[in-house]
Amino acid sequence: MSSKRKSRHGQKRAPQRPPHSRRKSGPAPGRAGDAGGWLWGAHAVLAALANPQRLPSRLLLSEEAAERHAGELRTLLAERPELKPESPGRDAFAKLLPEGAVHQGIALATPPLVQPELEEVLAKPAGGRSVLVVLDQVTDPHNVGAVLRSAAVFGADALVTTERHAAPETGVLAKAASGGLEHLPYVRVTNLARALEQMKAADYWCLGFASEAEEELGAMTPPERTVLILGAEGPGLRRLTREACDLLVRLPVRGAIRDLNVSNAAAIGLYELLGRSQAGRRD
Amino acid sequence: MSSKRKSRHGQKRAPQRPPHSRRKSGPAPGRAGDAGGWLWGAHAVLAALANPQRLPSRLLLSEEAAERHAGELRTLLAERPELKPESPGRDAFAKLLPEGAVHQGIALATPPLVQPELEEVLAKPAGGRSVLVVLDQVTDPHNVGAVLRSAAVFGADALVTTERHAAPETGVLAKAASGGLEHLPYVRVTNLARALEQMKAADYWCLGFASEAEEELGAMTPPERTVLILGAEGPGLRRLTREACDLLVRLPVRGAIRDLNVSNAAAIGLYELLGRSQAGRRD
Repeated sequence: MSSKRKSRHGQKRAPQRPPHSRRKSGPAPGRAGDAGGWLWGAHAVLAALANPQRLPSRLLLSEEAAERHAGELRTLLAERPELKPESPGRDAFAKLLPEGAVHQGIALATPPLVQPELEEVLAKPAGGRSVLVVLDQVTDPHNVGAVLRSAAVFGADALVTTERHAAPETGVLAKAASGGLEHLPYVRVTNLARALEQMKAADYWCLGFASEAEEELGAMTPPERTVLILGAEGPGLRRLTREACDLLVRLPVRGAIRDLNVSNAAAIGLYELLGRSQAGRRD
Repeated sequence: MSSKRKSRHGQKRAPQRPPHSRRKSGPAPGRAGDAGGWLWGAHAVLAALANPQRLPSRLLLSEEAAERHAGELRTLLAERPELKPESPGRDAFAKLLPEGAVHQGIALATPPLVQPELEEVLAKPAGGRSVLVVLDQVTDPHNVGAVLRSAAVFGADALVTTERHAAPETGVLAKAASGGLEHLPYVRVTNLARALEQMKAADYWCLGFASEAEEELGAMTPPERTVLILGAEGPGLRRLTREACDLLVRLPVRGAIRDLNVSNAAAIGLYELLGRSQAGRRD
């Protein structure tokens, strides 16, 4: 699996600490016993090990997991001679990870990734399709992680959210992202309305999802550079976010319930912008 | 919210015990302390109260939740004079519900719904678009619930899954379904390959999602009656399920990760079959 994955930075695997000046504020680097510094689950951990930006300090591995992922681990650990897998009992997993963590016998202690600033993301030269996903105060890490995963699947260029009222990069988010966190910048900004203006200045077109919109997704032609903006379930997009959008669209729903889960709505938007519109059409 | 919702049976609200002969095997009716019999979360509980098929025995309501949903609760409880809301402290919620249940101050003890047999679902007369969703051994109740929710949003006619290796109707599933469980039959069959043959005999066309398929979703024209079939993440569709499909399609992915979360894949399939294809096209 990891052999097909390319780090988003495309570097040769040579773990090295990034320049301190680029470090964003956030949780301290993970240490043993610091649940905030642990990733768990096979996809999340194997993808993190394949990412040269990750600087893990501990790898917990059950015998079953070591056997199941033997080939991939051999390749990945050859690049990280300093990392010696530990094989603790079930109790150690339970003690070190948050309750209910579905760890599949594999966990990694690692500081959070150093994420680029929005300006760096927007500096990507125009030409070719580019989609950014913006989440406006979506706080559930399962949902944010699931959106990161879909964004990585369809090839979006970044997930942007607010610094406050958003999900921090945690093990729960990384597990839900199923490796997506390693392939896509997760950028947090202090002022979302201002960030949207920066995106527009960089030739992005802002498309917001709002259930009361008149136009349906699928009836519009997406420009080459598009920002897909979704709000939290319930409140939806905030007023300033809504006003910053170039167009509001709704999903064509006809059933007894009106609102999709936000990660499912995002998946449909990404499919429309990066999947379907690029594929052979039936019509 | 519930005033807009119609029970899938369209009955006047008059709670009455369904004939015993139709009761499927399953967990015993919910009692106090029986976590299997509890639903929680505002959407799941309010939708259950609006469903005349539900026969709840207890309603737990925090003061905040009682205030937040006062109007809706007044209407719903007028139809259920036997149900007296209890206002216990936080501890009572924690004691009665599973650990980690995000209950939002509202919980309902109720037996599982009596679900129709597949034959009853297929007896729906032909004419008009109909989509059934089939999950092949998807065991995570969060995923199954999320698929139920999307199926209710787009107006699918049933979710069908296996009796074994599938998620039972639990509070976790109902919470993720966000009310969807009240609007859509959740049918469990002992033999899925045989069930697919029954669907074909009822003029349904079987469309399976498989990452190795040659044809892309969106390149095919869906017939009026379609079954959308998804397997578990990782193993995908089982061989017999795959062989029963009329067509296998894949999603047009181009990113660093290949596999979507199953509920996101289902949402995209439902959008393509019941949303997009019914809406104004841009092309």
